[in-house]
Amino acid sequence: MDGLTGGIPPLVDQHSHGAVHGDVGLGEFETRLAEAAGATGPAPPGTTFFDSRAGLAVRRWCPPLLGLEPHCAPVRYLARRRELGAYRAGRLLLRGAGIGTFLLESSASGGLTSPAELARAADGRAHEVVRLETLAARVADTAGGADLFLAHVAEALYAASGTATAFASGVASCDDAPPPAAEVRAAAGRWLRARRPGETPGDPVLGRYLLWCAAATGLPVQLHCADPRRLTGFLRAMAGRGVDLVLLPDPWHRRQAARLAAVFPHVYADVGARPEETLGEAPFGKLLFSTGARGLAELYVVAARLFVRAMERLMGDWVADGWCRAAEAGRIASLVAAGTARRIYRLDAATG
Amino acid sequence: MDGLTGGIPPLVDQHSHGAVHGDVGLGEFETRLAEAAGATGPAPPGTTFFDSRAGLAVRRWCPPLLGLEPHCAPVRYLARRRELGAYRAGRLLLRGAGIGTFLLESSASGGLTSPAELARAADGRAHEVVRLETLAARVADTAGGADLFLAHVAEALYAASGTATAFASGVASCDDAPPPAAEVRAAAGRWLRARRPGETPGDPVLGRYLLWCAAATGLPVQLHCADPRRLTGFLRAMAGRGVDLVLLPDPWHRRQAARLAAVFPHVYADVGARPEETLGEAPFGKLLFSTGARGLAELYVVAARLFVRAMERLMGDWVADGWCRAAEAGRIASLVAAGTARRIYRLDAATG
Amino acid sequence: MDGLTGGIPPLVDQHSHGAVHGDVGLGEFETRLAEAAGATGPAPPGTTFFDSRAGLAVRRWCPPLLGLEPHCAPVRYLARRRELGAYRAGRLLLRGAGIGTFLLESSASGGLTSPAELARAADGRAHEVVRLETLAARVADTAGGADLFLAHVAEALYAASGTATAFASGVASCDDAPPPAAEVRAAAGRWLRARRPGETPGDPVLGRYLLWCAAATGLPVQLHCADPRRLTGFLRAMAGRGVDLVLLPDPWHRRQAARLAAVFPHVYADVGARPEETLGEAPFGKLLFSTGARGLAELYVVAARLFVRAMERLMGDWVADGWCRAAEAGRIASLVAAGTARRIYRLDAATG
Repeated sequence: MDGLTGGIPPLVDQHSHGAVHGDVGLGEFETRLAEAAGATGPAPPGTTFFDSRAGLAVRRWCPPLLGLEPHCAPVRYLARRRELGAYRAGRLLLRGAGIGTFLLESSASGGLTSPAELARAADGRAHEVVRLETLAARVADTAGGADLFLAHVAEALYAASGTATAFASGVASCDDAPPPAAEVRAAAGRWLRARRPGETPGDPVLGRYLLWCAAATGLPVQLHCADPRRLTGFLRAMAGRGVDLVLLPDPWHRRQAARLAAVFPHVYADVGARPEETLGEAPFGKLLFSTGARGLAELYVVAARLFVRAMERLMGDWVADGWCRAAEAGRIASLVAAGTARRIYRLDAATG
Repeated sequence: MDGLTGGIPPLVDQHSHGAVHGDVGLGEFETRLAEAAGATGPAPPGTTFFDSRAGLAVRRWCPPLLGLEPHCAPVRYLARRRELGAYRAGRLLLRGAGIGTFLLESSASGGLTSPAELARAADGRAHEVVRLETLAARVADTAGGADLFLAHVAEALYAASGTATAFASGVASCDDAPPPAAEVRAAAGRWLRARRPGETPGDPVLGRYLLWCAAATGLPVQLHCADPRRLTGFLRAMAGRGVDLVLLPDPWHRRQAARLAAVFPHVYADVGARPEETLGEAPFGKLLFSTGARGLAELYVVAARLFVRAMERLMGDWVADGWCRAAEAGRIASLVAAGTARRIYRLDAATG
Repeated sequence: MDGLTGGIPPLVDQHSHGAVHGDVGLGEFETRLAEAAGATGPAPPGTTFFDSRAGLAVRRWCPPLLGLEPHCAPVRYLARRRELGAYRAGRLLLRGAGIGTFLLESSASGGLTSPAELARAADGRAHEVVRLETLAARVADTAGGADLFLAHVAEALYAASGTATAFASGVASCDDAPPPAAEVRAAAGRWLRARRPGETPGDPVLGRYLLWCAAATGLPVQLHCADPRRLTGFLRAMAGRGVDLVLLPDPWHRRQAARLAAVFPHVYADVGARPEETLGEAPFGKLLFSTGARGLAELYVVAARLFVRAMERLMGDWVADGWCRAAEAGRIASLVAAGTARRIYRLDAATG
C-alpha cells in the first residue's frame, strides 16, 4: 500500500461470467484454467497448465484462502477444495477476492452462477449485464417471422433496460449509421429459418442492428471486440447522445481502446487486471477494472489480486518519483478500481 | 544524472508547432491539453483532463517555473499564469524547458509563434521546417492553372531550400517511383478547381509529387506518417542520393520507424519524448528527440523533462548494469538529445 | 543467479546458421553485425554499428573471452581476434557462450560452419535442421520434369527424416489443407523451367506442399514466418497428428506466437534471447530459446548472455515477489533454456 492514502476500496468488477456450481476434479480444473488462457486442447504429455503465469498466480493466492500454504501442490489444493465442498470453497474464494460489486453477463447456457447466487456467495452486490445476442436468441426461440421477431426484440430491449445495468454487444465492427431496415429484415429472416433453438445470431447486420437499438435505450453498452478501431464510426456517431460506451478489446488492443477513450468523451476502456498497460494512454477516469472471470472462483481471486498489486506498485512508483502525492495516487487508483464504474453504471442509485 | 558524465546538453527539438500568443483561460487550457492527447470533446461531467498522465506532468513541472509549488491546484496555476501575463509566463516556461534549439514547422493558420518569436521567447535558436502541403497551398492561392501551379511549386521549393532547415511531408504511403506527370497534372487541376483559398492538398498523388520534388533539393525531409512501413518503397528508392529522411510516425509505430532507420543508412527516426521504446531497435545515432508541442508552452516543458528523465534513467541503468561506461552513456544520450540533429540538419553551419 | 536453485543448465540453441570460417576485418565485422540487425548498407558517415545495443553487447561480453577488458575499443578487439587466428578465436568465443547443444540450419551457400565443425569448435553437440526450400533446390538441381522432381522430393524428405532433427519452412501463410496436386505440379513445372541452379523456390504453393510433406514424416517442423497468425489454419489442421510445430516469428510477433503456443497442444514458440516478452503468454513448457546467430561467433555469445541474464533477472524478481519458490524458478528457467527443446527434438535419444 506504499504511496496510497487509504488504500484501494472494494473493487467493482465490470465484466465476468460467474463461477460453476459443483465440485471440479483436477482434469476439469486444469481444462477451465486452460480455457481462461484460450487453450483448445490438453497440455502436452509431461506438462501441465499449472506451469504458466496463471497457474503460478492460482497457486500463490488461492491456497491461503482455503487454509493452506501458498504454492502447495495442485493435487493438495484440489483435495482441500473437495473436502470443503464446492459451495463453501467458492464462498471462501469469492469473499477473499476483495471485490464488492460484480457486473455479471449471465447467459442461458453454461451452468454458472446467476447474479443473485454470486452476490450471496461473495457477500457483495451483483448487477446484470444483458448480452444482446443472448436476448435475441431468447426472443427468437418463441417468435414467428422476421417482423414479429424484430418487434419482440424491441420490446425485450425496452423491458431489459428497466432492470439491467448495461447491455453487452459482440459485433466486431460498426459504422456510423444503423443498417437499412430491409437488410435487417432479410438477415433476421435468413437467421430465423436456419437456426436451431438456443442459437445466437452471428450475422453482423443483425448484430449491428441490436447494438443501435440497445444504445437507443440510454443504458451503457459494453462493446466486446478484437480491434476497437473497427468500431470508430459507431463511437463517433454516438457522441453527444448521452450513452456511455465501454470498450472491452482483446488483450492485444488495450492501448488502442484506451486511446479511443481518450479521444471521445462518452467512450471508456476496460483495463482488465493490467492497469500498467494503459494508464498513460487515457485520462484516469476513462479506465475500468474487470476480471473477465468464467467458471472458476479462483479466476476472480487472481485477477483482483493482480490488479490491486499492479495498481499499488504503479502508484507507489509515481509517488516515489514525484508524479503525484499520495492522496492523488489514492484517488486515481480508486477511480479505476471502482469510482468510474460506480458513476457510469449508476451503481449507487441501483438497488440490485 | 547518475551514470552520465557531464549530463545531457541543451536539447534540439526537431519537431514542434509553436505556442499561442495570448492568455489562456481554464477552458482553453484544458482543451489544448486534451488536443495534445488527441481528444475531440470535453471531459465527461465531473472529470478533468488534468486527471491524466499529461495533466500530472504539467502540474509537476510547470508550477515551479512560475514560482509555485509542484502539484498546486490547476486554477491556482492558471491564475498565476494570467497574473504574469502570457508573454512573461511563456518566456519563463520556454526558458525553463532545457531546449536550446527548435525546428519549427510554421503554418499559415493557428496564431502560433513564428521561429523568430519562439527563439526570442526561449532565448534559443529556431529554424524553419517548411511543410510541403502548406507551401503548395500558398502557391495555389495565387497560381492560375495546373501547369503554372506546378512551375511555381518548383520555384517555391527551390527558394525554400535556401532558407529552410528541412521540409516536412504528410503522405501516408509512397512507392519507389514518382507519380507520372500526366497524373500529377490531372490531380493538380482537380484540386485547383475544387479548393477554397488556404486549403492544403489531400490528394495522395499530389502529396507524393511534392515529396519527390522536395527530396530532389537535397534538404532533409521529415516524413509524418501513421505506419512508416508504407513508405518503404520511397525510402529504398532514395538510398544513395544524399538526402536524409526522418520518420515521425504515430506513437504506435515508433519501433517500426526505428527498425527502418536501422535498415537504411539515410533514414532516421523520431523518438518523441520516450527514448526507452526505441533505443534498442536502431543504432543510437539514428534516433532523434522531439516535443511535437503545439499551442501551450507547457507542452515543451513536459516533453523535454520526460525525455531527459527517461534518458538519464536508462543510461543510469545501463551503466549500473555494465552495458557501457559513464562516458559512453553520456555520448549516447547526447547523440539522441542533440548531436544527430545538429549533424543531419547542419545546425552548426546554419545561421538561423 | 539470485532466486535460481542450481542455475541454468547448458543452453540448447534451437536455431542458428553457423559461424564464418576465416578471419574478418573491421569492415566485414561491422557489416555482419549490421546484417544481424537487418541493415542494408553502411553506417552513415561518422557513425558506426558498434554504436547500437548489439554493438554494446559485443563490446561488453566478447573481449573478456579473448583475454581483453570489457568495452575495449573495437579496433583493439579485432586486432586481438586476428592475432589469435579465426579458428582459435572462434573456439574461445563459442566455448564461452554457455551453449551445450546447437540445432543448426545448414544451407548450401554462405561458407558457414557445418554441424560437425560447430560441435567441434564449441565442444558441444550439434544437430542438423533441414530447410525445406534448400532441400528442394538440391533435388531440382538434378531432377528432370515436375513429376520426377516431386517424386525425388518425397524420397529426399524421407531420407532426411532419418538423419535430421527437424525440418524448417519459410512459408508466410498456410491453410488447413494441402494445395491440390494439379496446382503443385503446375507450380513445380513453372519453377523448374525458370530457375537457375542453386535457386530455392519462392512460390507459396510449392512452399506449402513441402511443408505438408515434411509434417507427414513426423519430425518436428520449425516455421519461420512474419505474423504466425497467418499459419493458424495449418496449425489447427495438424492437431492430434503427433507432429510438434515450432513458430519462429519476426521480433514483432513473438507474443502472437506465444499465444498460439498457448492455444494448441502441439505448437511451440521461439523466444529468441528475450524471454521477458513472452513468458506470461504461454505455459512455460511451450517456449524455447534460440540465438538465431549467423556469421559471427560473437552473436552466439551475445544472444546466450542476454537470454541467461534476462531469465535470471526475471526469475529473481518472481521469487522476490512471491510468484514462486527458488526451486520452481530454476525448473521454469531450465525448461525454456533447454528442457523443452530436449523433449520435443528428442535430443537425449539422438546420437548426433
